[in-house]
Amino acid sequence: MTDPSHWLPLTTANVLAAHDLIKPYIHETPVLTSKTLNRIASTPQPAEALIGTPYEGQPPAQPKINFFFKCENLQRIGAFKARGAFHALLRAVQVLGEEEVRRRGVATHSSGNHSQALALAASTLRIPAHIVMPSISTPSKIAGTRSHGARVIFSGSTSQSREAAVATVIAETGAILIPPYDHADVVLGQGTVAVELETQVRDLVEKDAGLSVHRKDHEGGEVGKKGTPGVLDAVITPLGGAGLTSGVATYYSTRTPKTLVFGAEPSFQGGDDCRRGLAAGERITSVKTLTIAEGLRTPVGEVGWPVVSDKEKVRGVYAVSEEQILAAMRLVLERMKVVVEPSAVVGLAVCLFDEGFRRMVVEECAREGKDGWDVGIVFSGGNTTVEKIGELFMVKELD
Amino acid sequence: MTDPSHWLPLTTANVLAAHDLIKPYIHETPVLTSKTLNRIASTPQPAEALIGTPYEGQPPAQPKINFFFKCENLQRIGAFKARGAFHALLRAVQVLGEEEVRRRGVATHSSGNHSQALALAASTLRIPAHIVMPSISTPSKIAGTRSHGARVIFSGSTSQSREAAVATVIAETGAILIPPYDHADVVLGQGTVAVELETQVRDLVEKDAGLSVHRKDHEGGEVGKKGTPGVLDAVITPLGGAGLTSGVATYYSTRTPKTLVFGAEPSFQGGDDCRRGLAAGERITSVKTLTIAEGLRTPVGEVGWPVVSDKEKVRGVYAVSEEQILAAMRLVLERMKVVVEPSAVVGLAVCLFDEGFRRMVVEECAREGKDGWDVGIVFSGGNTTVEKIGELFMVKELD
Repeated sequence: MTDPSHWLPLTTANVLAAHDLIKPYIHETPVLTSKTLNRIASTPQPAEALIGTPYEGQPPAQPKINFFFKCENLQRIGAFKARGAFHALLRAVQVLGEEEVRRRGVATHSSGNHSQALALAASTLRIPAHIVMPSISTPSKIAGTRSHGARVIFSGSTSQSREAAVATVIAETGAILIPPYDHADVVLGQGTVAVELETQVRDLVEKDAGLSVHRKDHEGGEVGKKGTPGVLDAVITPLGGAGLTSGVATYYSTRTPKTLVFGAEPSFQGGDDCRRGLAAGERITSVKTLTIAEGLRTPVGEVGWPVVSDKEKVRGVYAVSEEQILAAMRLVLERMKVVVEPSAVVGLAVCLFDEGFRRMVVEECAREGKDGWDVGIVFSGGNTTVEKIGELFMVKELD
Repeated sequence: MTDPSHWLPLTTANVLAAHDLIKPYIHETPVLTSKTLNRIASTPQPAEALIGTPYEGQPPAQPKINFFFKCENLQRIGAFKARGAFHALLRAVQVLGEEEVRRRGVATHSSGNHSQALALAASTLRIPAHIVMPSISTPSKIAGTRSHGARVIFSGSTSQSREAAVATVIAETGAILIPPYDHADVVLGQGTVAVELETQVRDLVEKDAGLSVHRKDHEGGEVGKKGTPGVLDAVITPLGGAGLTSGVATYYSTRTPKTLVFGAEPSFQGGDDCRRGLAAGERITSVKTLTIAEGLRTPVGEVGWPVVSDKEKVRGVYAVSEEQILAAMRLVLERMKVVVEPSAVVGLAVCLFDEGFRRMVVEECAREGKDGWDVGIVFSGGNTTVEKIGELFMVKELD
């Protein structure tokens, strides 16, 4: 790891600087909207959906929600992780010099999107990369990592076994460790999602204002009184190690008018470690869940925790069930025609199915005299396969 | 049907006029590019892929192909059919007057995307729609058609039974028949895809030229000597009833510099009726195939045939196997992260897997002194479900 004393503080200015640094290497991913999903989110849930929740028997809330989907599934390597990896590497070069970084190389252990992201960033900058992956990783992920020229080192699948393998690699090569989220430069890189989202939403809303006279007569569906046109009322991001959530929250923390940031996680088998940690007032450091949201199986990291546990920066964290994740994923694939991985839709699932969140939107709107909320959703990644999609949705039929 | 004597002739000008007419009612769907798919298309097929083809034992061709994907899967109702339906209805109103069309209503029989397209167009223009659907249609398609306020009339699944049901509806109501492709106004409407594609490709290429200095150093992958920058060398569209192909070919027929138009169809169980008809010099009027490309199970229509059989307008028609369609669909979902239905990818499958097509591209480039072709691919629709995706790709595992 680069010495934490070299890390930049988590500030809005440093997220902007990170964006300038990585911009030549990443895609400015598109922001999509969907009238269909806006309509679904703005329709009360059926009363049955509230059975067994604290809201059973009460009238379902009817928030008015307009979505702006930031499509990091279309990012290089298919996930936002490319941002943090490029930023951490470029910063290492700034701090230690190109020669030293190239001599030592970089290392990480991850079976997920971060491995491919680091491999891509390293090969682009002509730096050797040593990636420890469990030998049981899917062959496509191993091939994907190797296709970027990285050296793949196999380990057992326990975290002890992986950490031992990385320690060995580092001892042998002097490689610089770039972990998937517990690193300020990685967090600042992930935060650059928000820099683009802010500008893109403003541009979309301005363009739409120009077209609205033209379209109004046959499409309808206007949002009435709003906060500041073109400024999101809220952004909700998937939350695992909290790199993305804390990066995005860092960016928005000093922007005005205020955009609230929320985290979303899976509740399956205790995957909602952040929500539970917040309730207990202490970070939960170990999680063991096999949620379908594979990217969110990790506990919140040390670097992200001070941000996500600061109410001024992250307003709240919500958790959704496996069924809710699948229902949201179906809507995105079938209605929006966009391929996302399960982790990517937890934020959408919160907006559609979490009655507590939906009530809060109604109450906040009433308090602030708004007709509805414009909500940014970060589709964090799209790395899945057609077989995996089949498995996720066909299990019920085979039961 | 509106009296064919009122139909507009199939000309470039009339496609442009159609676009002006329908523009307020349809989406200008995005055009996407993919470096990954360009790279795959520009890599020779493995020698094994040519076994059993006329090219067995010969060195595989290496064309250089840059794709521009016109995403009609993101069109309203999820398919290009919205264009033809709106145009036919707006033309009927022009010719017969709003009052008469509203009194009589419109009718069609189709189990596919055209039904939903006509239902949407009719409800938008406040015209009654009577849609005959086989009673065995999937519930979601029936619900989709009804959701636009159309009256659904059930029939048996044979074409005789469906035609009888439509005849009865027309006799009872005086409804105007709007068939899915055998209607010049429908064909002109489908051709508007090309109007947008032409402008969008020019804009994209201009924008990219501005960025290329900036990007060249780390992304590479330039195309060298070209025809006219921003003008497609070829467009390839799915071909069933030939409404889309003949509309697009009509538009390009008088444009200069020349953009060649090709059709693509499934070969399974004789689904390649157009190719066979062209070889025999006569339209094949009946097809019985259960190809996974459901939208392409119909024979070429009477209106489209004179266009697709004119070499000056449609340069060639190619056919692909079910396996090739699935392989192309997998690439689009997994690499581009875009959801398409099987019919949508037959053109891409031709470019990737038809060695005859690939050789032809190499030869044409050599003849014209070009380094490669810029090829427009029309993703015709995206109406599928997660279960259907699972069925398509998981059959092998269950075998």
